[in-house]
Amino acid sequence: MAKPLKVGLAGLGTVGTAVVHLLQSERDKLTSRCGRPIEIVAVSARSRGKKRGVDLKKLRWVADPAALAADPGIDVLVEVIGGAGNPAKRAVETALAAGKPVVTANKALLAAHGDKLATIAERHGVALNFEASVAGGIPIVKTLREGLNGNSFTRIYGILNGTCNYILSRMEQDRISFGECLREAQRLGYAEADPTFDIEGHDTAQKLSILASLAFGTKVDPAAIYVEGISSITLADLDAAAQLGYRIKLLGVAVRTEAGIEQRVHPTMVRKDSAIAQVMGVTNAVTIDAEGLSPITLVGPGAGGTATASAVVADLADIARGVRTPPFGRPVARMTAVRKAPMQRHEGGYYIRLLARDRPGSAATIARRLAQRQISLESIVQRHEFQPGSNGQPGRSGDPVPVILITYATSEDAVRKALAAVRRDRVISGRPQVIRIEKN
Amino acid sequence: MAKPLKVGLAGLGTVGTAVVHLLQSERDKLTSRCGRPIEIVAVSARSRGKKRGVDLKKLRWVADPAALAADPGIDVLVEVIGGAGNPAKRAVETALAAGKPVVTANKALLAAHGDKLATIAERHGVALNFEASVAGGIPIVKTLREGLNGNSFTRIYGILNGTCNYILSRMEQDRISFGECLREAQRLGYAEADPTFDIEGHDTAQKLSILASLAFGTKVDPAAIYVEGISSITLADLDAAAQLGYRIKLLGVAVRTEAGIEQRVHPTMVRKDSAIAQVMGVTNAVTIDAEGLSPITLVGPGAGGTATASAVVADLADIARGVRTPPFGRPVARMTAVRKAPMQRHEGGYYIRLLARDRPGSAATIARRLAQRQISLESIVQRHEFQPGSNGQPGRSGDPVPVILITYATSEDAVRKALAAVRRDRVISGRPQVIRIEKN
Repeated sequence: MAKPLKVGLAGLGTVGTAVVHLLQSERDKLTSRCGRPIEIVAVSARSRGKKRGVDLKKLRWVADPAALAADPGIDVLVEVIGGAGNPAKRAVETALAAGKPVVTANKALLAAHGDKLATIAERHGVALNFEASVAGGIPIVKTLREGLNGNSFTRIYGILNGTCNYILSRMEQDRISFGECLREAQRLGYAEADPTFDIEGHDTAQKLSILASLAFGTKVDPAAIYVEGISSITLADLDAAAQLGYRIKLLGVAVRTEAGIEQRVHPTMVRKDSAIAQVMGVTNAVTIDAEGLSPITLVGPGAGGTATASAVVADLADIARGVRTPPFGRPVARMTAVRKAPMQRHEGGYYIRLLARDRPGSAATIARRLAQRQISLESIVQRHEFQPGSNGQPGRSGDPVPVILITYATSEDAVRKALAAVRRDRVISGRPQVIRIEKN
Repeated sequence: MAKPLKVGLAGLGTVGTAVVHLLQSERDKLTSRCGRPIEIVAVSARSRGKKRGVDLKKLRWVADPAALAADPGIDVLVEVIGGAGNPAKRAVETALAAGKPVVTANKALLAAHGDKLATIAERHGVALNFEASVAGGIPIVKTLREGLNGNSFTRIYGILNGTCNYILSRMEQDRISFGECLREAQRLGYAEADPTFDIEGHDTAQKLSILASLAFGTKVDPAAIYVEGISSITLADLDAAAQLGYRIKLLGVAVRTEAGIEQRVHPTMVRKDSAIAQVMGVTNAVTIDAEGLSPITLVGPGAGGTATASAVVADLADIARGVRTPPFGRPVARMTAVRKAPMQRHEGGYYIRLLARDRPGSAATIARRLAQRQISLESIVQRHEFQPGSNGQPGRSGDPVPVILITYATSEDAVRKALAAVRRDRVISGRPQVIRIEKN
């Protein structure tokens, strides 16, 4: 029997515990597939006494994760502590600097220090694997890093946050407001007590920064991403989207443009019959566009102990077999800096919902302001119109009238300037809702 | 600069030509990703003079593919000749026996000789990669072999034949008969002049045998697969499926049962809101079920020069980087023999469409025969019923009445025996249509 791969496990939360389980239950299969057993020999976690439902008696307990990483008795460190700072950062750096491969599920750490950690891994010739850091059980990291090496990517986009997708799905399916859905998601444990990080798009942005780097060879830089969350989405938007053949998803999008790699996170209209539009609930999905190819979409569980642990174990299996690829698919020296794409220069179609004041000339004013910015309209829907006799129930004259506009491809700058002019003209009430349309 | 990986390319059809193109256009990126260039140095094909739109002038021409495989000037053989026999087989065997890794897109060769070729590869310590052999541009082979090593698979199923999915999609969307769709598919080049291999399910079976082996560690054995094609599917079935919330797909299914791995290819009812049901046209898709996990689905282009070539190039990139995994994910000695699962023992729900003779007692007889075999019904739909006054247009008494039955889980044996009894009772006209329902 070949020498086992000796694992030090830092972190014993949901994911860490599931890793212990999985390595035990899949032991024989993994040994056969890797040619050697994978064995946890030591663990580190905050609380030693906590009940976790797994047998840790035979494992050495090392209080400090960095000491675990340096321990000569371990061959590889699994870091599932989480967080961009210490102790996770120091543990990972210590292991890599000691020439030990690392498997981590820590998106925050990679988003903040991915290039630096990749540099240390490269210098010491060891693997840094992080399949579990993005989209849990979906093998998207390996797919981008190794599976599609023959493809020239043009765009990658995905549903990377289960909380947001759960909320948008529930709103649409059960006609519940954003606030109510959020409270329910919190009750079910799908959303944190402070949900800002998820619903304002920051979690998606961290994951997108990792995917963009793998797909386009850019340095990992969440600060280069334009981020907008889902809290402004209303049932009226979901209804209008449905009527127009779209669905609204919070997407992370990285796309190759003439100006460089544009990275953005925002609510997005996607064609209802596309693979990604079908993804409901907490499920995640990623679509990859490459030159000369139909899109490839991967759909699956984005979170949960078993899904995340299965990704950690697959990464360990690669290490056990001696497979090592550069962390981001190419040498760090070849990774390019990325500027924050100015959203003003984003080009695409737009959905605009506004409340027009019911007075003569409102529609004409709106149309003129858009035309002044060379914005062409694909469709206009004006509902609750005051047309006496049309349905026997004339609306009250004076009520603002919802107007939905769908533009052809234009620039964000043009849209913002046109709408600012419309507001100055005082022909609408409140702020217009603007949602970008992603061609797919 | 590290030494280039020197490639011998056997086969210059659509895929071979696309490989030449792709290695040229992606040269820099691949060099950066693999740490060395990948270069075609010699080619072999049937006709030297044929115009292919690629520059082959600088490449050596070797008439015999096996001689190309043995050529000391090449490091790796790419086989895109096709066919289970020679010259493809001899070329691949020659390369492996000479200690050279092989990349092949040849599903027929792998289905017929997969174990034997894996044995030669293993003996000589070289890679045998075949991402392109199943589902073209979808990286399903690598995903099963390496990406999901932490998962314990319970079932894998997929749409693996674009021709069949195109036909079923067109029939449903445009209400065209099977025969008309087939003729159109032939006109568009989606179906062969002799379409039997595709529409009778044999192409799907070859691919399924490879996927089942990767997922479950069984020997590659298409003869162990129950196979049934789509030529009996009618518009009436598609309509009934839609009304009941299903869609009909030709699926290849491999599932772990108590009796072993059941492998089957047949038209299947899948829930309309599932990811796989959304896959229309020539697109392929594979869904993977694993213990304790939500399903993972991969959707993408199943065929075409660029999609297939991109898979070939990804396999080459792994070889260039020195990555080698056992061809079927584990040593050949650990691959288990698979018996043909007797379909009589298949358990699941069934859709049954029959034409009941319009005479007193027909329905009662059918119900009794099913009850005798302990078959419970989830739903019964009887249309064009003779109910005077119900719609002012009574059907003609005497016309046979279509009846759609959906059963709860039962055995194939019970269904077949019950329907045989119903036929003997002479209460139906013609043969009943039976379509299996796949829980998803």
